[in-house]
Amino acid sequence: MKALHIYNSFTKEKEEFKSVNPAKVGMYVCGPTVYGHPHLGHARSAITFDIVFRYLTYLGYKVRYVRNITDVGHLEDEVAGAGEDKIAKKARLEQLEPMEVAQTYTNSYHSAMDQLQVLRPSIEPLATGHIPEQIKAIENAVAAGYAYEKNGSVYFNLEKFAQDKEYGGLSGKVLEDLQVGSRDTEGLDEKEHPHDFALWKKADPKHIMKWESPWGLGFPGWHIECTAMSHKYLGFPFDIHGGGMDLQFPHHEAEIAQAQACFHEAPANYWMHNNMLTINGQKMAKSKGNFINLDEMLTGKHDLLEQAYSPMTIRFFMLQANYRSTVDFSNEALQAAEKGYQKLMKSDKVLKKMSPQKTKNLDETLDASVIRLLTQFEQEMNDDFNTAKAIAVLFELSSYIFQFENKQLPWASLAKETQKLLLEKFPIFIHDILGLKSEEEGSGDRLDALVNLLINQRKEAREAKDFALSDKIRDDLAAIGIVLKDSKEGTSYELE
Amino acid sequence: MKALHIYNSFTKEKEEFKSVNPAKVGMYVCGPTVYGHPHLGHARSAITFDIVFRYLTYLGYKVRYVRNITDVGHLEDEVAGAGEDKIAKKARLEQLEPMEVAQTYTNSYHSAMDQLQVLRPSIEPLATGHIPEQIKAIENAVAAGYAYEKNGSVYFNLEKFAQDKEYGGLSGKVLEDLQVGSRDTEGLDEKEHPHDFALWKKADPKHIMKWESPWGLGFPGWHIECTAMSHKYLGFPFDIHGGGMDLQFPHHEAEIAQAQACFHEAPANYWMHNNMLTINGQKMAKSKGNFINLDEMLTGKHDLLEQAYSPMTIRFFMLQANYRSTVDFSNEALQAAEKGYQKLMKSDKVLKKMSPQKTKNLDETLDASVIRLLTQFEQEMNDDFNTAKAIAVLFELSSYIFQFENKQLPWASLAKETQKLLLEKFPIFIHDILGLKSEEEGSGDRLDALVNLLINQRKEAREAKDFALSDKIRDDLAAIGIVLKDSKEGTSYELE
Repeated sequence: MKALHIYNSFTKEKEEFKSVNPAKVGMYVCGPTVYGHPHLGHARSAITFDIVFRYLTYLGYKVRYVRNITDVGHLEDEVAGAGEDKIAKKARLEQLEPMEVAQTYTNSYHSAMDQLQVLRPSIEPLATGHIPEQIKAIENAVAAGYAYEKNGSVYFNLEKFAQDKEYGGLSGKVLEDLQVGSRDTEGLDEKEHPHDFALWKKADPKHIMKWESPWGLGFPGWHIECTAMSHKYLGFPFDIHGGGMDLQFPHHEAEIAQAQACFHEAPANYWMHNNMLTINGQKMAKSKGNFINLDEMLTGKHDLLEQAYSPMTIRFFMLQANYRSTVDFSNEALQAAEKGYQKLMKSDKVLKKMSPQKTKNLDETLDASVIRLLTQFEQEMNDDFNTAKAIAVLFELSSYIFQFENKQLPWASLAKETQKLLLEKFPIFIHDILGLKSEEEGSGDRLDALVNLLINQRKEAREAKDFALSDKIRDDLAAIGIVLKDSKEGTSYELE
Repeated sequence: MKALHIYNSFTKEKEEFKSVNPAKVGMYVCGPTVYGHPHLGHARSAITFDIVFRYLTYLGYKVRYVRNITDVGHLEDEVAGAGEDKIAKKARLEQLEPMEVAQTYTNSYHSAMDQLQVLRPSIEPLATGHIPEQIKAIENAVAAGYAYEKNGSVYFNLEKFAQDKEYGGLSGKVLEDLQVGSRDTEGLDEKEHPHDFALWKKADPKHIMKWESPWGLGFPGWHIECTAMSHKYLGFPFDIHGGGMDLQFPHHEAEIAQAQACFHEAPANYWMHNNMLTINGQKMAKSKGNFINLDEMLTGKHDLLEQAYSPMTIRFFMLQANYRSTVDFSNEALQAAEKGYQKLMKSDKVLKKMSPQKTKNLDETLDASVIRLLTQFEQEMNDDFNTAKAIAVLFELSSYIFQFENKQLPWASLAKETQKLLLEKFPIFIHDILGLKSEEEGSGDRLDALVNLLINQRKEAREAKDFALSDKIRDDLAAIGIVLKDSKEGTSYELE
């Protein structure tokens, strides 16, 4: 079988994956900035690298997966490196201590990711918890001549760095782009070059989050935390650095430059970036009113949503696209994903009731086909974690499983070893690698059966023109949070 | 009603609680050292202060509740201040990065506490995340003359402190006790006095967790993190400092001394300590084989356990004792707690089906009795959070509720206002203040409501002599595993 290949955003090529240490993988992924509840973008990035984490583990690697929490807040004008600390601003609005805000949203992020079956990383370091490490890294950059202090702030000398080393290898940006595109107004008088960026910012007296440093009271720039923390927990170069595509520039370019300036090494061997989300074809943005929090997805409480979508529907929907493609959220697409997910869960349930039997009339073609599909799943995953194609393979296997169930195909016509392989591998693929789990609650089936009993009663009442009764049934259900919806296809219900 | 009184371990008296800021409370509780899975002792401390957090919130205070995570590990020989860093040791055994070990057990702690319905604190700071704050505090102590450096370590000069200020007010220990009781062997040659304790320890080259400091590479002593972090997030003096009774000495005595040496103030106005657990009358200890992890409690997988106990049974069991008393775990006691918990949940369920009615034949004695009990619950809680007595009050209310249900007492004989009060307060007491929740499956309440809808329909059908319909409803329910049972008191149901 072809070995694992990863599309390396740095070289723009699919490359065979070789880890620094043959048995271990070090992976660093940029985690959330905790000044708001998690949204769909957080989910996509977390799910993308959760798959990488799960699949590498399946392949036998011991993975140290580090995903940071940015609790210091980066600057509002992110490209420019100026503006007010987002977390501190929110805290003052809410009359809270910044760390209390950060804790609230960190808890909210964890709870949402748990629901999406995103495994916790091995280490989840906080930016505020690594101030000495960041100061040390900045001191190194100053000592190497790639950073300078001005009025209590320290800037990265991108001009000099780009003269000495390669800059822009990831994003294709050149310094001229930065000068033209710069939205920087604040701090311009301090910087030697407009595209230099802050490693350390002097804190004005009103700034809540600040620490002592060799340059006075201040706080770290946005980019340096990832350099300091990935270096501390993984060493350079580590294997995989991941994040959303929007982080390629300026954040990851800054990390690549910082790593060389502070530690004389490239940070990572493989760069991976997940693509973005669109909502009904449009970019998600608060200003467009199409910004959907995960909580809104799960409750269906958003103008753009026709219904609530379960965590597994959302996860499955994202996995049906390649992580390097954009994904467009629409009710139709989500509803289709819901059906697809349920189909896989159903085949898993069917499989659970089956056991290996003595082969009778071996069907060699069928047998080979099942074996081929089981191998193909791994081949698709080995091809840069192509969950979209891997899921297509699972659907083919599902069709066989249903045909075995209803006896259209005789289960015993597979070699016993093939039966065993299917029984063993299919659950591993969907649960361990794709991270899907059944969402049936203990009493969910019963609840459904009960509501359907009452829907039928109501239907009969309406047919008998007993509208008092049919209305009463609807109202009784509404009173306990079960809302009936009539349509041409019949009556469905939603739980409030 | 008598205002909230708290037993202050420092003064050894119950004192009326007055917060520094009338509307807010700052509370700091010593959290877990994350080098193992959480056990019953962790649960008791967390539940004790969860009740304090919940009840203060109920009283209208805005509580900033800080509970730390000790991830740096304190020294193995805790009294002496010498020995190997526990987390680093475990890490080497497991071939893990110390922070990976800490993360694993932090996640395990969170997950267990969530199950026990322990609310997350407002801020959960990490010791490793506050190295600069600890260094600063130590520098203050050195500057104040209460600490001295020796060979790259810094020691607290307890001898001098005890000459100048009060020491031992919490534990009653005097320096002579410490000298006699000292288990210290290592570091003795460095300390000026045998009872001095380490604020900062020089790291030997093999030590994994270490940071730069004005005294060279090292790591903080055990006690200083709580002083640095409580000061940072709450300021001195804050209102309540809590922890297990085993922390009174030396940890909390050290905090009291450090606070004065580093910040010239007493740390907290009220000290609260929860008592310890015993297992079948014996102290819990790994060496005795009676050490029970929470996971073992929840699965029943321990030689001493006859069955698994649910999170709410464990919580309820602990709440049935006053937090200042020892609690003895035994199967008999847990099984009794299980019954008691279920009784409360059942009365809550009964209450949910009741609604205020117009008063008929007011029973003044009964009415006064119900009002008295509702008030008494708060009085017991105001008496140093006496959950044991508060639960006894709830049992008395439960008895009334069951008598209202089976019509031994007429519900309408209460004043309508009293009915409303009972309907409103009882669920707040058990859910919001005691933090108990129903352990019936997710859709349990709705399922119950739906079955009751159908039971009512059937009743009406029978009253209308439509036995075809009433039988059909019974059969439809039976088909989905819901069996109706008719008796003199009405119809109940069981899930198959």
